[in-house]
Amino acid sequence: MKTIVINTGTEILLGDVLNSHLSFIAREILPLGLRVDRQLAVPDGEAIRDALSESSGQAEIIFVTGGLGPTTDDLTREITAEFLGLELQHDAAVMAAITARAARRGFRLTDRTERQARVPRGATVLPNENGSAPGLYIAAKATGKKSPHLFLLPGPPRELKLMFTASVLPLLRKIVHRESVVDRRTYRIAGMGESLVEEAIGERLLGINGLELGYCARPGEVDLRIIGEPAALAQADAIIREGLGASIFSSDGGILEEVVVKLLTERKQTLAVAESCTGGFLAHRITNVPGASAVFLAGYVTYSNDAKEGMLGVDPRLIASDGAVSERVAKVMAEGARQKADAAFALATTGIAGPGGGTDEKPVGTVFIALATADGAPTQVRGFRFPDDRPTFKELTTQAALEMLRRSLLA
Amino acid sequence: MKTIVINTGTEILLGDVLNSHLSFIAREILPLGLRVDRQLAVPDGEAIRDALSESSGQAEIIFVTGGLGPTTDDLTREITAEFLGLELQHDAAVMAAITARAARRGFRLTDRTERQARVPRGATVLPNENGSAPGLYIAAKATGKKSPHLFLLPGPPRELKLMFTASVLPLLRKIVHRESVVDRRTYRIAGMGESLVEEAIGERLLGINGLELGYCARPGEVDLRIIGEPAALAQADAIIREGLGASIFSSDGGILEEVVVKLLTERKQTLAVAESCTGGFLAHRITNVPGASAVFLAGYVTYSNDAKEGMLGVDPRLIASDGAVSERVAKVMAEGARQKADAAFALATTGIAGPGGGTDEKPVGTVFIALATADGAPTQVRGFRFPDDRPTFKELTTQAALEMLRRSLLA
Repeated sequence: MKTIVINTGTEILLGDVLNSHLSFIAREILPLGLRVDRQLAVPDGEAIRDALSESSGQAEIIFVTGGLGPTTDDLTREITAEFLGLELQHDAAVMAAITARAARRGFRLTDRTERQARVPRGATVLPNENGSAPGLYIAAKATGKKSPHLFLLPGPPRELKLMFTASVLPLLRKIVHRESVVDRRTYRIAGMGESLVEEAIGERLLGINGLELGYCARPGEVDLRIIGEPAALAQADAIIREGLGASIFSSDGGILEEVVVKLLTERKQTLAVAESCTGGFLAHRITNVPGASAVFLAGYVTYSNDAKEGMLGVDPRLIASDGAVSERVAKVMAEGARQKADAAFALATTGIAGPGGGTDEKPVGTVFIALATADGAPTQVRGFRFPDDRPTFKELTTQAALEMLRRSLLA
Repeated sequence: MKTIVINTGTEILLGDVLNSHLSFIAREILPLGLRVDRQLAVPDGEAIRDALSESSGQAEIIFVTGGLGPTTDDLTREITAEFLGLELQHDAAVMAAITARAARRGFRLTDRTERQARVPRGATVLPNENGSAPGLYIAAKATGKKSPHLFLLPGPPRELKLMFTASVLPLLRKIVHRESVVDRRTYRIAGMGESLVEEAIGERLLGINGLELGYCARPGEVDLRIIGEPAALAQADAIIREGLGASIFSSDGGILEEVVVKLLTERKQTLAVAESCTGGFLAHRITNVPGASAVFLAGYVTYSNDAKEGMLGVDPRLIASDGAVSERVAKVMAEGARQKADAAFALATTGIAGPGGGTDEKPVGTVFIALATADGAPTQVRGFRFPDDRPTFKELTTQAALEMLRRSLLA
């Protein structure tokens, strides 16, 4: 069944928000054998009608996101009802849910709130546990003319996600009547460029019948995606594991911080981090993982030199002689953090994120990463050059740090 | 001039990556009077031809992103050349740039690299400073049939962004012949819901001729967008400022952490943070701001109780009596961080991010935020309930903390 996602919202086309709906919906529907064949984004207003009109002939399932809220630019409900020739009716149950939610949260209702309780005749209401505007499902048979299954979903991602899992997926299962035999797998690879990954395994994978292959380069990572039936996937899996080995850090969708927290948890080890240039991002990535509190003890965000001295015991003479961004300061930071937090491992970062602060000898992008361990092994220090914008610099540095720890945990 | 963005890449439609190109391109072209009228995403392969074919009749300017790389799924260059009837030719200058870049970075070239040096006859090469595949511009007149201006841009965001600013914008200026008189402004508002923002100012704004209005709710924030000619914007600006006052934290696109760092810098004040439940995210947000090192001294990511005691001097008896997630622990954390770092201000967070760890008395989402100051004023502590997923919890908590500091700096 052909599937189209229509994202409505002038804010998307003006670039005020990133479209996260497409990604979420695509991942949720794949196990049902459904793929998004096309996605389009249109502004609020009449363009929604055009998008519905042209997509209705191209797809059996259409998801429309956004434009169900209370404000004057929210028009999806009205335009869709008019397009399908379905009258809008006040739904008392929806209104009661909106009123109860507002009371629970201490919100006051405004005059416009009632619009969210209007439901096209024959549509199924999809409850919104995380917001006030409900979603709507209009079955293919509900209108006279040939029409697709139509899902109207709210714009705020938290609202859409919960509604999708709770209400949309059960409806989709009835529509498609089966789970798919085609599956996907994504291998995440650290420490190798895209071309080298393809060189290592690409030719051999191209020989597998019915295998769909994709490469995606990300900061400090290459994601290799394969889609196919179980036999093709098994054949590919053997080639990929043989060719890439320990460079693969996950094949179940896990991101690097999740893999590291899992390895630490399994090995009953603890971690502290000392961050200068990454400014808390390393701790943030680790603490994003549910259950991180079992292994992560403390983070020392020592942005100033005084903080490096006071919090980690870095000798000011060392900073004076070598500079705060240096191999030896990284080493002492990691060792200080490990001892102070009484952790099995400690990672430290010190570098020049830019845009200012670079010198001829140490240009913007220079960074040192250290890993101290409790097992008596010498502290590892590695130098990198990531001459990138500030967010990418932080991303690449924390990725390299987590990968150093992962490799050490595997050894 | 009508503008369409076509994002190619199976990874986008499978949900492996978020589409950040649309947002970037939209913001860059608005000052030229251009808006993205429609965006579509299609998988790698033949669907690119369909998208080009149908969009060619609908727009004068088309941006195509992705599919210019070296791997087998990169087909945009070949399909576009074939669609337009333009022969691909090896470009020695492009090949030399690719070879030099690989040498500089210590990369090895593979057999497939050469594909990136093929250029459709008559196309303009757009150099790629951040990657190997160049972009391509095919002017409307370059082909026989009626065709739009076509820009082929690389998929990796870092590569696309730099290329867009350096090469695409100068070409667009020649194409459109003018800067626009229409402008946009976005007001960012903290501490008020979307409906209350609209109630405060919406009716009056609807009365302004030629003003386009949009609301966008984000975690802990409402963004109010107006677009129009200078007179309409000035009229709207007066109404918005009168109605929303200090709840507006920026009207120049600045995000909350930028506003806070700017206020601290102007007032020559310093900041430390003590984080439990936000796990480094507050420090990360602050250190994302270029120049943060002038005001941000240190972050204490005290995830464990031992860390709260050792790093911040929190009395273990207080944790035993009140719990780590409590008003008094938040207060002592903030005061401890302020004193240890010798900062003018310190923010502290302690809460239950979930999914585990909640109790009847303190359910998941409970959080306390404290702000300690050097001026002798009592430490402020506020309690919140953010019963949301982990990333949203961190977002809302850091947003509330930054807003407490901003209000205090304004007072």
